[in-house]
Amino acid sequence: MAFKRITSEDISHFQAICGEGFVMTDPESLSHYSHDETEDLKFIPEVVVKPESALEISAILSYCHQQKISVTPRAAGTGLSGGALPVYGGVILSIERLNKILLIDERNYQVTVEPGVITQVLQEAVKEKGLFYPPDPASRGSCFIGGNIAENSGGPKAVKYGVVKDYVLNLELVLPTGEIIMTGANVLKNATGYNLTQLIVGSEGTLGIVTRIVLRLLPHPQYDLLMLVPFKSALQACETVNAVFTAGIIPSAMEFMERDAIDYTMKFADVQHLSIADDVQAHLLIEVDGNDPDQLFKEMERITEVVSLFDIGEILFAESAQQKADLWRMRRSVAEAVKSNSIYKEEDTVVPRAELPRLLEGVKKIGAAYGFKSVCYGHAGDGNLHVNIIRGEMDEASWNEVLPKGIRKIFELCVQLGGTLSGEHGIGWVQKDYMDIAFNKKQLDLMQQIKAVFDPNGIMNPGKIFAN
Amino acid sequence: MAFKRITSEDISHFQAICGEGFVMTDPESLSHYSHDETEDLKFIPEVVVKPESALEISAILSYCHQQKISVTPRAAGTGLSGGALPVYGGVILSIERLNKILLIDERNYQVTVEPGVITQVLQEAVKEKGLFYPPDPASRGSCFIGGNIAENSGGPKAVKYGVVKDYVLNLELVLPTGEIIMTGANVLKNATGYNLTQLIVGSEGTLGIVTRIVLRLLPHPQYDLLMLVPFKSALQACETVNAVFTAGIIPSAMEFMERDAIDYTMKFADVQHLSIADDVQAHLLIEVDGNDPDQLFKEMERITEVVSLFDIGEILFAESAQQKADLWRMRRSVAEAVKSNSIYKEEDTVVPRAELPRLLEGVKKIGAAYGFKSVCYGHAGDGNLHVNIIRGEMDEASWNEVLPKGIRKIFELCVQLGGTLSGEHGIGWVQKDYMDIAFNKKQLDLMQQIKAVFDPNGIMNPGKIFAN
Repeated sequence: MAFKRITSEDISHFQAICGEGFVMTDPESLSHYSHDETEDLKFIPEVVVKPESALEISAILSYCHQQKISVTPRAAGTGLSGGALPVYGGVILSIERLNKILLIDERNYQVTVEPGVITQVLQEAVKEKGLFYPPDPASRGSCFIGGNIAENSGGPKAVKYGVVKDYVLNLELVLPTGEIIMTGANVLKNATGYNLTQLIVGSEGTLGIVTRIVLRLLPHPQYDLLMLVPFKSALQACETVNAVFTAGIIPSAMEFMERDAIDYTMKFADVQHLSIADDVQAHLLIEVDGNDPDQLFKEMERITEVVSLFDIGEILFAESAQQKADLWRMRRSVAEAVKSNSIYKEEDTVVPRAELPRLLEGVKKIGAAYGFKSVCYGHAGDGNLHVNIIRGEMDEASWNEVLPKGIRKIFELCVQLGGTLSGEHGIGWVQKDYMDIAFNKKQLDLMQQIKAVFDPNGIMNPGKIFAN
Repeated sequence: MAFKRITSEDISHFQAICGEGFVMTDPESLSHYSHDETEDLKFIPEVVVKPESALEISAILSYCHQQKISVTPRAAGTGLSGGALPVYGGVILSIERLNKILLIDERNYQVTVEPGVITQVLQEAVKEKGLFYPPDPASRGSCFIGGNIAENSGGPKAVKYGVVKDYVLNLELVLPTGEIIMTGANVLKNATGYNLTQLIVGSEGTLGIVTRIVLRLLPHPQYDLLMLVPFKSALQACETVNAVFTAGIIPSAMEFMERDAIDYTMKFADVQHLSIADDVQAHLLIEVDGNDPDQLFKEMERITEVVSLFDIGEILFAESAQQKADLWRMRRSVAEAVKSNSIYKEEDTVVPRAELPRLLEGVKKIGAAYGFKSVCYGHAGDGNLHVNIIRGEMDEASWNEVLPKGIRKIFELCVQLGGTLSGEHGIGWVQKDYMDIAFNKKQLDLMQQIKAVFDPNGIMNPGKIFAN
């Protein structure tokens, strides 16, 4: 794709729109916005603009559309698929100044929020009113809700409460051509025209820029209980996941961690140390939540019965809020810890839940065949397994040429098992070459033609999702 | 739109695809397929075809695409917005022979089903395995799951469990150009490309024909309790709805019925008679469900406390399975009963839940101004109010010319209150002239351009959703 290079005239134009202080071309800013959390990838943008409203964004996009300047939207830059990388240079459009919670509507259990609000800040603000916004990606302390919308994020609670798409009622969207539209209405049920809202959720900033978000909320559950179950076989840990569901219990979290994931985390992250027996190969972190403590204790007992049918070690029941927080901190620190140790590629595989043992087994076999080591963990209750492939001592040629063939095998296995490429991280820049595994030409054509409807000049986040 | 008329050559072609017995041109068949449940509308198709597989459907669509023949897909014909009316003649494509439940996957809580399965048959089949498919339109005993997908149907349980879209994981779709695609994957979380699945749900058969459906399921709740609360003011009944939610309870149903709705039903439908005090103006039918009877009794007590703050009559607590069934039968028979009395137009208004009292009040005021009587009832817990406008003695001119202006006022009010035109019935043929109230030109253009991506020759269910 050929985009126009940024000129001083363009810069002046952006300055006229946003004010001089919000248009950056200094090397430090360009470097800061050149990467997200994906591997060690860096692409230097030509300019960073920080508009403060939908109207300013509309003016910027409308100009870039006319001038054929590439625009990469950026939320907090915590993404793991390279969605915020400005791979064609051009403009980085940061939504960080659209950071207000506009309305917590307690009567209708809804919140209206700008995209630059940190997810955890949003969660805590609605919790103060007794309300609950469940999706909780590991990065919730730093990621923005707008980025979560772009990637259709999940997190541990998805197993009971669903993912971002299940909470989005309506979006204000600035189209790449500059028009500002709402995608739906602020209602729980809607059978009025095509579902543009759900087309935008998970579209990774390729169809426009979301500037206002209406989310539905739930009443906040009052209690939760947490247990950590050590397994002597990682495969058995995976098998247990389905056994718990088949027993009729829906936990509010069901997280799988390979032995290595916890070992890395205790070594590289600032977390509470656990003493883990030598024969433990994996853990499940299981949470239940609700409003009746007796009911939750019953569910924990029932889960204990189910897991005890497998070869497990001593279960740790979190006894205090502090202990729960420590266990969750450990789980949320895994990716960071693996990264502190080595550059890695993170694959966000997803399969129907019961196929998880076959996926794990397959990943290890493929690793052995292609010469890579992986640390696996993730949202087992959803069949969503993060496979962290450690670069370690791998040479340039193996990392760049052999490994992609191994990753291709992993994704082929996912699709064979009824799954697909990404559960919650998106395709972005780093997975787009694998899209042909999940979709045939006709499916990809439909998606790209939809893209062209929204973005006839192809300026919005080019180079993402689609290989060509 | 100009479509090719059906010739004997076309008929032979369809016969070659489906077999002679499944291509009908006799007047009786054409008449049978000329209407759905929308008002008294009838449009005679030129031919009815009944393929038995995606491959046959592909051959039919591919031919009609080339020949520019209009195709109206039809499920059970229970729709209330005229989605199955063959307004341009042409082909009625009935999916009634695709009527198999293909796989109940108990390990993954999923079911794979063809579109011609009756919704209640599907619900009962999965219930036998302890599984639960919640969406339950009033017509569930006769409607097809494929029609439910087309309209993104709801039903009473939507208030707790969501609507059809919340259960659809993956669809097999025959495109108007003949290709057969899957829209997604059989997974609970998916961040892989655009969400084609959710674009198809609710698209009213205008983008292709769904031939296989993968739905997620829940464990079936073991218990439910039901109460009928009479109110002396319909407005207060509406206000109560939000008070119950604000008390932190999520009922599994929260149905509103105006006095007239019950009176009509007892008069025109074969239902149990209730003795209702003269001063009762409306009822709420409230259900809770779950796995712990004690918990449910507590919730019912709490609801009783909340409703008792309003001016209510004596609450009826359903004491047996039979009494519950009788009450639900009454609720499900309202539309039918109103229809037995008079031709009517059914508006499927929806607003944020807390705006329901203002909507009801507005509807009555508009009715008084434009000279029509309405019977209102519906899924109050979702802010989804069915407004049945009775034709009664209204003359042709008032029905065709004055009434649409009143309906326009009702929809304008919905949109002012943050709502939209349809919660669960769709736009179809009868509401399309109101789409400009909910959407501006750009939004409608986007939708129509998406339609053109899927259906370049515009053969699929023409005349629906969009006014031009």
